[in-house]
Amino acid sequence: MAEHKVTFDTSPEPVFVPTGTLLVEAAKEAGVEVMQPCGGQGRCGRCAVQITEGTARRRSSLRLSEEDIAEGYALACQTVIEGDVSVVVPPQEKIQRRLTTDRTAAEVRVPDGYVPEQAQTIKRYNLTIEPPSMEDQTDDWSRLQRALRQETNLEGIKASLGLLRKIGAVLRESGWQVTAVLETHIWDCPECEARLIDLLPGNTAAEEPLWGAAVDIGTTTVSLWLVNLLTGEVAAQVAEYNGQIARGEDVISRIVYAGKGTGGQELSQLVIGTIDELLERACKRAQADQEKIVKMTITGNSTMIHLLLDIPAVSIRLDPFVTGINLIPSLMAGEIDIKIHPEASVDCLPGVASYVGADITAGVLSSGMDDTEKTTLFMDVGTNGEIVLGSREWLVTCAASAGPAFEGAGVKDGMRATKGAIEEVWVNAEDYEPSYRVIGNVKPQGLCGSALISLIAEMFLTGVLDKAGNVQVELDTPRTRQGEHGGEYVIAWADETAHGEDIVITHVDIDNLLRAKAAIYAGYTILADSVGVPLEMVEQVLIGGSFGKYINVEKAVQIGLLPDMPWENFHFLGNTSVQGSYLALIDYQRRERIRGIASRMTYIELSADNSFYDAFMSALFLPHTDMNRFPTVAKMMESVK
Amino acid sequence: MAEHKVTFDTSPEPVFVPTGTLLVEAAKEAGVEVMQPCGGQGRCGRCAVQITEGTARRRSSLRLSEEDIAEGYALACQTVIEGDVSVVVPPQEKIQRRLTTDRTAAEVRVPDGYVPEQAQTIKRYNLTIEPPSMEDQTDDWSRLQRALRQETNLEGIKASLGLLRKIGAVLRESGWQVTAVLETHIWDCPECEARLIDLLPGNTAAEEPLWGAAVDIGTTTVSLWLVNLLTGEVAAQVAEYNGQIARGEDVISRIVYAGKGTGGQELSQLVIGTIDELLERACKRAQADQEKIVKMTITGNSTMIHLLLDIPAVSIRLDPFVTGINLIPSLMAGEIDIKIHPEASVDCLPGVASYVGADITAGVLSSGMDDTEKTTLFMDVGTNGEIVLGSREWLVTCAASAGPAFEGAGVKDGMRATKGAIEEVWVNAEDYEPSYRVIGNVKPQGLCGSALISLIAEMFLTGVLDKAGNVQVELDTPRTRQGEHGGEYVIAWADETAHGEDIVITHVDIDNLLRAKAAIYAGYTILADSVGVPLEMVEQVLIGGSFGKYINVEKAVQIGLLPDMPWENFHFLGNTSVQGSYLALIDYQRRERIRGIASRMTYIELSADNSFYDAFMSALFLPHTDMNRFPTVAKMMESVK
Repeated sequence: MAEHKVTFDTSPEPVFVPTGTLLVEAAKEAGVEVMQPCGGQGRCGRCAVQITEGTARRRSSLRLSEEDIAEGYALACQTVIEGDVSVVVPPQEKIQRRLTTDRTAAEVRVPDGYVPEQAQTIKRYNLTIEPPSMEDQTDDWSRLQRALRQETNLEGIKASLGLLRKIGAVLRESGWQVTAVLETHIWDCPECEARLIDLLPGNTAAEEPLWGAAVDIGTTTVSLWLVNLLTGEVAAQVAEYNGQIARGEDVISRIVYAGKGTGGQELSQLVIGTIDELLERACKRAQADQEKIVKMTITGNSTMIHLLLDIPAVSIRLDPFVTGINLIPSLMAGEIDIKIHPEASVDCLPGVASYVGADITAGVLSSGMDDTEKTTLFMDVGTNGEIVLGSREWLVTCAASAGPAFEGAGVKDGMRATKGAIEEVWVNAEDYEPSYRVIGNVKPQGLCGSALISLIAEMFLTGVLDKAGNVQVELDTPRTRQGEHGGEYVIAWADETAHGEDIVITHVDIDNLLRAKAAIYAGYTILADSVGVPLEMVEQVLIGGSFGKYINVEKAVQIGLLPDMPWENFHFLGNTSVQGSYLALIDYQRRERIRGIASRMTYIELSADNSFYDAFMSALFLPHTDMNRFPTVAKMMESVK
Repeated sequence: MAEHKVTFDTSPEPVFVPTGTLLVEAAKEAGVEVMQPCGGQGRCGRCAVQITEGTARRRSSLRLSEEDIAEGYALACQTVIEGDVSVVVPPQEKIQRRLTTDRTAAEVRVPDGYVPEQAQTIKRYNLTIEPPSMEDQTDDWSRLQRALRQETNLEGIKASLGLLRKIGAVLRESGWQVTAVLETHIWDCPECEARLIDLLPGNTAAEEPLWGAAVDIGTTTVSLWLVNLLTGEVAAQVAEYNGQIARGEDVISRIVYAGKGTGGQELSQLVIGTIDELLERACKRAQADQEKIVKMTITGNSTMIHLLLDIPAVSIRLDPFVTGINLIPSLMAGEIDIKIHPEASVDCLPGVASYVGADITAGVLSSGMDDTEKTTLFMDVGTNGEIVLGSREWLVTCAASAGPAFEGAGVKDGMRATKGAIEEVWVNAEDYEPSYRVIGNVKPQGLCGSALISLIAEMFLTGVLDKAGNVQVELDTPRTRQGEHGGEYVIAWADETAHGEDIVITHVDIDNLLRAKAAIYAGYTILADSVGVPLEMVEQVLIGGSFGKYINVEKAVQIGLLPDMPWENFHFLGNTSVQGSYLALIDYQRRERIRGIASRMTYIELSADNSFYDAFMSALFLPHTDMNRFPTVAKMMESVK
């Protein structure tokens, strides 16, 4: 049998191996360490290496994108050597980043073909104004309006009383040389005239940035991007836990809290406090002045938007689940006391229903699904699973009340994805021993959402769980045992953990997670049925949400949370809500497009749908009652066995 | 010579007198007292009686209107008996009222042909709304908008954040039966959509009034009319001194005060305090709820409007005398803290220039001069003499900086027209002894504006003053004497007065008054010259302003303050500013008309007009250098001599 030369960049000498040798074996021979947390079953992707010269046969490329493969990436445990090859072993950090970090969101790009002057409604004008004289006693405001009309062709520009109070002094103190900042287009009021936001003494240098902020209010995390409206460039991205968390983890408990006494005002102030904190941080980073931020767009689920504005949200949680308002009029920052320019317009983007909010309409926009011919499934997996199915032609949406299980809530050792959280788990099929990765490389404290998904998938594939999700306590391993509420599996022993107690997943946890994923899968089914499009006809799956960003697709497929489709059909888009907020901030046509998206999305209320229960029950199994829906998983189960 | 029977209603027996006897002589014979303060010269009008049967020849009818004459009124001192007559001697109060009180303003009338439903932009709708259901999860606000659209055909009705916060609760607590109050037309924003002002639980009875308030902010007096917008009827009229008076009597001193530290805010709060006081009083009288006033219109001179809104007014008093703003955008009451419904729109009517404000544009509207074919001179005599000349076709305007002399300021014993003020003076041509009338029938304290006019006229006609306004101190009367600053005339001796000192008019006072009247007369001249229309072609003179209301026309003509014209060409309109405010309140087309008036009035800045000085100098005499301009006065001077 022919021998082939295999060269590793991390080893001084090449090794020679026969045809058919796995790359991982060659590495071992060369003394090169390649991680294999899943035990070499091609499930974890952690053994990815880059073949820079020569070719090799990939038995499986799970977890690798087309782009990865084009760049020569291959899974060392699934790649068969059939000729001479040179291999680069990337540092684990790099692999992990490729696997877990959202590639789209990692680098924010100003959209292609974006022309700020055309897209932006915030405009800045340097004006030199003819001072009044006995021959021309025109009042200050009409004089300024006239100068602006000459510069902009806009008629009847408006100004608030606050501005009218200051323009006389600004005009005179500056010797009639001023800078006017205008909003030329009020987004929810196409018939409204342009509005003066500020009048500053002196002319302003062209390179001086004009600031805007795009905000996404998540139930858990508030994200803010500080943007130079003159270029569209993002100067700072910051995020912080929503200050409301202290008054309730989920939307329901916050709605309840808001309904009592001054709870509504308090929650509003809390999240405004978070926004102000983020503004301060972003401005410090970009050396910007908070008071000079002249526009803000805000997305968030319907409850978050109601609570921000202190609009009663109580009807959202009570049958028949209606919001107070889906399309908020354009506000001024001063009205809600956000500490940017008080005349800055604050546009809360429109929602569709109680559980399909502006985060989803903005997500649809930033995903581009409303402008594609491909039949697309868009989902935002957070506390709720909001799902949108459609294309350029049509859009249907629903919210699967998945509950917060995938955010770690309702799970014994669940936690949010912060330092100390196990974020991914692999189970060795031979001895049922787990390996895991912890955020921050510290002792683990608990399991975050992505860990729960990979854990259940691994337990199922390795036979620790049966189809119904029961822990097989009779297996020959100390990892499975009978707990207080049924079978459980130990991921980390007490002596490995931060708190000195075992980290386990219990029968109850698994039950909660299966219900959550079943609700979401049933959501797809109902949406697809409602338009008569079989799920198999879906051409791409776009996954948004900061949680979605960390999901391992094949794990999520293996548990039946995502439909079974080729890897390349899945795209992780990161926080699509803040991205949509950003696009709406920099481009009024995209703002209008979100309105269009909101108005043409057909909302399907699952709790009013008779077929939902059946679909839910069928999806309560791993990955599903009907294995024909999950051919890849069926095949993998075969290979594991 | 034939004897005629003269019967007086106040005497039991008739008297018989020969042809040619004056009525006043017959009265004396009958023992009937008829007042003759002017000494029987037909100047004061106080001897007016009513001839109910028979006829008599009127030698003069000065001070009597055509209407008076038609009703049989005659001046007893000027009426010659030529047949049997029956005479009614009215009580002096009635005579005084006829002579001094504005007949037009005394009774406020809803305009003829006024149809509130068409004219009014404030509308109230009773709505029964379909509650949400699983089949129709439309959000509360869209649901309300939909119901309103069905009722009104209006698209895209807007609401403030404050209202959006409450509608959910109102809808539910009222069982989806509500009353919506809308403003269907934002006056300075024709392209704006209708606006929800309030949403009230339950339906409202049709007869329940819908309140509005029309306000006029005078430098001295603030007037407020409380109006039922459903009918146009005025439920209460109240007036009060402007609370700013304590910080300055005239506009200039207030502008100066406003320019220092927090003076602007203070003046704003003071006048808002006055408005609130008036609101309270009017609402008490009409049993209305202040919070239910849903619209307000405001007029006033440009300084008053600036100070109300705390917009810097400093440029108004400095060359080149420009305002900060002439056309104020529609505001909400909450923005300026006027204690009516916080969402009520507050429309400040538009002004034209620093010294031709909304009081004048509103006055032009209420006078109707902008809609007549007659060449009309409109004037508002207050602190300044604002003058408008024109007709349906054209309008020119100017402000004669008359100063506050006619309001009693800058005059030694001048005072405002309150209790204790002498309001009219007559001088006996024989002995130069004065008679006077005091407001409130108490001991006199000083002279108000109307007294100053009548005093100067009487002094001039009786020879106490020469043409140049010099007091003839050499006359055989203790009333004229040499004072500290030249000649003076004593109207009341110390023992008759409230303060125990003589009430006099001095050379300096007379000089100030002549300058004031000369400025106004020069104003007419410049306006007339500017359009090439001789003053004689003016077909009517309309006099507005609360001060104008008390002027005796012929006295004002005699001193050359008003042009010499037949009595019937003069019309006293009272406070035309508050009347215009009222018309703008009840009728949006009239509101629009005021905007039209403001934009088509050509303002002539007298201080920039070269011919003004000459016209002013010519008018510094009594009544004028050119006596041909005052033929009636020339004739009367003949009769007095």
